[in-house]
Amino acid sequence: MATVPVQLPVPAALSYEVRIESGLISQLGQAVRKLAPAPTAAIISDTTVAGHYLQAARGSLAAAGYSVVDFVFPAGEASKTIETATAAMTKILNFGIERATPVITLGGGVVGDMGGFVAATLLRGLPFIQVPTTLLSAVDASVGGKVGIDHAAGKNLIGAFHQPRAVLTDINTFKTLPDREVRCGLAECIKHGIIRDHELFAFISQNMAKIMTCDTETMIELVERNVKIKAAVVHEDPYEKGVRALLNLGHTFGHAIETVAGYTGILHGEGVALGMVAAANLALARGMLSSDDAEQIKTLIDLAELPTSMPEIDVARVFEAMGRDKKVEGAKIRLVLPSKIGAAEVVRGVPDDQIIAAIESLKCPPMSANCEK
Amino acid sequence: MATVPVQLPVPAALSYEVRIESGLISQLGQAVRKLAPAPTAAIISDTTVAGHYLQAARGSLAAAGYSVVDFVFPAGEASKTIETATAAMTKILNFGIERATPVITLGGGVVGDMGGFVAATLLRGLPFIQVPTTLLSAVDASVGGKVGIDHAAGKNLIGAFHQPRAVLTDINTFKTLPDREVRCGLAECIKHGIIRDHELFAFISQNMAKIMTCDTETMIELVERNVKIKAAVVHEDPYEKGVRALLNLGHTFGHAIETVAGYTGILHGEGVALGMVAAANLALARGMLSSDDAEQIKTLIDLAELPTSMPEIDVARVFEAMGRDKKVEGAKIRLVLPSKIGAAEVVRGVPDDQIIAAIESLKCPPMSANCEK
Repeated sequence: MATVPVQLPVPAALSYEVRIESGLISQLGQAVRKLAPAPTAAIISDTTVAGHYLQAARGSLAAAGYSVVDFVFPAGEASKTIETATAAMTKILNFGIERATPVITLGGGVVGDMGGFVAATLLRGLPFIQVPTTLLSAVDASVGGKVGIDHAAGKNLIGAFHQPRAVLTDINTFKTLPDREVRCGLAECIKHGIIRDHELFAFISQNMAKIMTCDTETMIELVERNVKIKAAVVHEDPYEKGVRALLNLGHTFGHAIETVAGYTGILHGEGVALGMVAAANLALARGMLSSDDAEQIKTLIDLAELPTSMPEIDVARVFEAMGRDKKVEGAKIRLVLPSKIGAAEVVRGVPDDQIIAAIESLKCPPMSANCEK
Repeated sequence: MATVPVQLPVPAALSYEVRIESGLISQLGQAVRKLAPAPTAAIISDTTVAGHYLQAARGSLAAAGYSVVDFVFPAGEASKTIETATAAMTKILNFGIERATPVITLGGGVVGDMGGFVAATLLRGLPFIQVPTTLLSAVDASVGGKVGIDHAAGKNLIGAFHQPRAVLTDINTFKTLPDREVRCGLAECIKHGIIRDHELFAFISQNMAKIMTCDTETMIELVERNVKIKAAVVHEDPYEKGVRALLNLGHTFGHAIETVAGYTGILHGEGVALGMVAAANLALARGMLSSDDAEQIKTLIDLAELPTSMPEIDVARVFEAMGRDKKVEGAKIRLVLPSKIGAAEVVRGVPDDQIIAAIESLKCPPMSANCEK
């Protein structure tokens, strides 16, 4: 017999910048040219965002010398499939690309996840530039290199880690967002406050009106504060072996709620909001969170006009769907639970009855004294 | 505006072992258990290999305590598609897996590439163990972490870099290979000799009979010598930014020949053999290779009973197909050309007429003086 060791060298550290300002899309071409010079560029976007910004983005890239191919798919989580990704790959490959061709994702989380997966797998990885156009994607999915698509068995079950060359956030794009989308972004901001930063939690409470009117300075500060948290967590744990798991607060419950809803009728941020309420109730029931902090969490979620209850929830199906989540380890669910405002922990081995009770708690509005269980 | 830097830490060096011996499949369960303990394991194989070894592999994994799911697909390059990969993902996800679940690819290059892509993208990357059952995959595709699938626009256009936890090569499996498959493996061995190791080139020349009868000691030495070369190149250049490009000797021509043939009728190693002849002829024509070395290259390829000519080649279509190859850079083809036996170079900006003449040269058997051009 023979044994040959294969040793891979330690790669150089990767780093990139997140730029947050107003009017970035009109300078997209110059910014991309500095990051990823090539004869061709690909834009991936959805029907909603393309209607507003595709021509400006194409024009700026063309002015910077790129031959541009775009792939626009129907907006919504239902498009985040292998079929959409395959159609994007086919269009981009048939246009003619090379290893240096940048893929620019222009849109929200679905566009970034799906388009990022295309960038990660075309020619084994093309340069990838995120242009998030929603608060949610700006503060969450666009930073950290997680890309992927959904499968009938669950969300984000197919994917990769593929770091962008840059994230270019144009705050102006948030002004065309429906309020409901801004609120969904706020759900992730509130999550960052709960798990790591009580000052951010207070900032959101105090600036709710300015946030909801997309005041430029407030929005830039909000995004900056959140990206710093996300970037710090990603730096500490790029492949989700440890602390990054805390970012899943509300997501294990939330993904299951979304899965049972078939990814329709409920937005991701709304699922996370419900998941954070369930996590707070579970933490309270286990004695690891004070009732005052649990109350503050639910109050802020409610102030953001995000859902804190779901009377029609199918408890058994949501519980079952949690078993399919990626965050299952050794066949046991691990949950992220808050211990105070500004700190959370990964808890393993929570008994099924406690998890079921936490899902059950969502049937009842937390502010109501009259809910029948 | 605000700018937030995102810095990713330097990952720890990755390393793994390639074990080469006879009878490894019967010890598969113990070997995998040490590398990737989990309640479940997935085997991906094809119909040809599964008929010989799937039960032994399943049995060994079950004896080591794994609950095993297998996905077996029709043998052949035509299966290396997004549809096959998606079907594998669906079967494995529906079985129920977690992030620690190992994916074992039991088969040749198509199984390793396709199954490796499934391992790379399921749950953003599962532990991956290669069990190559052909000489070709043992000396080439199983080492280096390149995984992927084909697209109508070309071979391996969708993929990832995903390093295995180990490569477990059971020399016994080569004994059930058709001679044609062994010869295809030899094409890559000859390539390694040409680009980097004249002693390996001589070893192959001197041991052709023992290689073709799969003599155990000779075969272990052959695989070991080749894996050492591949491992050294991968160590120097894991993401194919430099020296690793030399491994593409014969592949730019070869892939184009395979693409035009629709991946049927011609095996990968045969395409590479033809590609090496074209590259040797081109290097000779450019004055960078001696006619004696060019002759030795063609003689050894012929001794291995690999094709050195293709009278029916469609020169125009092969040339066009080369433009779609991943190794196009700045819209110009880069080619790997031998400079002597044991050394090769990446050459950029080769004029179209020289490339066309090199493809044209394959119409004519190199040993024949009577070929009409």
